[in-house]
Amino acid sequence: MPRLKLTLAYQGTHFSGWQIQARERTVQGELETAVKTLTGQNLRVHASGRTDSGVHAIGQVAHLDIPEDKTRIAWQNALNSVLPDDVAVTDAQFVPQDFHARYSAKAKVYAYTLWTEPGFTWPQRRPFAWPVGNLDFQAMDRAADLLTGEHDFTAFQNVGTDIKETVRTVYEFYRRPGATPHETEYVVRANGFLKQMVRNMIGCLVEIGRGKLNPETVTELLASGDRTKAPATAPAKGLTLISVQYD
Amino acid sequence: MPRLKLTLAYQGTHFSGWQIQARERTVQGELETAVKTLTGQNLRVHASGRTDSGVHAIGQVAHLDIPEDKTRIAWQNALNSVLPDDVAVTDAQFVPQDFHARYSAKAKVYAYTLWTEPGFTWPQRRPFAWPVGNLDFQAMDRAADLLTGEHDFTAFQNVGTDIKETVRTVYEFYRRPGATPHETEYVVRANGFLKQMVRNMIGCLVEIGRGKLNPETVTELLASGDRTKAPATAPAKGLTLISVQYD
Repeated sequence: MPRLKLTLAYQGTHFSGWQIQARERTVQGELETAVKTLTGQNLRVHASGRTDSGVHAIGQVAHLDIPEDKTRIAWQNALNSVLPDDVAVTDAQFVPQDFHARYSAKAKVYAYTLWTEPGFTWPQRRPFAWPVGNLDFQAMDRAADLLTGEHDFTAFQNVGTDIKETVRTVYEFYRRPGATPHETEYVVRANGFLKQMVRNMIGCLVEIGRGKLNPETVTELLASGDRTKAPATAPAKGLTLISVQYD
Repeated sequence: MPRLKLTLAYQGTHFSGWQIQARERTVQGELETAVKTLTGQNLRVHASGRTDSGVHAIGQVAHLDIPEDKTRIAWQNALNSVLPDDVAVTDAQFVPQDFHARYSAKAKVYAYTLWTEPGFTWPQRRPFAWPVGNLDFQAMDRAADLLTGEHDFTAFQNVGTDIKETVRTVYEFYRRPGATPHETEYVVRANGFLKQMVRNMIGCLVEIGRGKLNPETVTELLASGDRTKAPATAPAKGLTLISVQYD
């Protein structure tokens, strides 16, 4: 069956994450329901990876195999016409059969949004940013530099996973202005991420930005491989999956 | 009674606008309920002006008079602790008794957000931007220039108002990048606005950007004073009240 690659944007606020679960509203569940509406068949949709409850995406990638007699459907428009308002297909392309949303991925890019104005937040931005107030961004940038490169990220992986291989390469980890004057984003690109790795790194950076830890602490944490020594996980709502990169 | 000036941010999506109405959820209604929770009294909150259903604000200004025995309340924090999640007090200051949120206002600034990527929208941005696709921004900028200055804006005023004086001065009307790479904003600052004037001007600009009208049409519309000749009103959701300016 021809393989269809989908690029997806969603607001994670009202989803229990990507992965389909009984009695929970999930992105995968909504997509598979939409596909069933259009084809009458139960077809599995495979993503580049799960996103947690509350995490957003503007460039999640997924694939599914389309029955031969349904390939002439204008898939992007058809799916958007039946999907709920908080998930959208931003591109749909038929790809070679050996393409796999997860296994073919070479890198992923995430952005984490911090609300840095201490006096207030705008309600419009509350679902998308973690309010943290003033921070020492130079110290945080230093820590981001120390996290860049190939490391064993066990200290930044949450429990409840059976992943054996915990070495990942962070290609870049940098700061940029956010969508509003009160926001700052950290962008991180890596060949893969452990469970809640971005949120754990950001939780650590914010503690550094508050002066509670030195930037060099991240090197000790990496060496320790001990999650219990690292600061708390940053909230899901600040995180957005920006893109998944393939050859 | 001491007069308190409030600066307010709200997401307009789930409000029937600013003005209090029976059986409708409004920003004024939520604020007056919050004030009653804190003081036990029915106190009127006066805004710089109404915003329509669906219109957002990051810098609405309002005032109310506080009973002498309640002036020591930390008003910003107290109001935020009882207000719903889609409205926030971003500043609260006691001001002289002759300050009036509406009558003391010298100018207001609005921004209107256009989603200009024709292929898709991001669900995250749907409550905040009007999807219009590719536009001829040079033509729109020309029309914005022609609307700048002192004019009778009757042709850009919706019906259902008893306003007699329809001359306003637009101090600036310019384009800037939006919050995301797929968005463009028009910012307009004026000494006052007629009913739905920004949305009517933007509706006209978009028709010009689509090549359906020439930029010079706005000059004819201004001269005609005829609302029925002007293009349709732009949707409320793209509009945000940015600030209200006082001496």
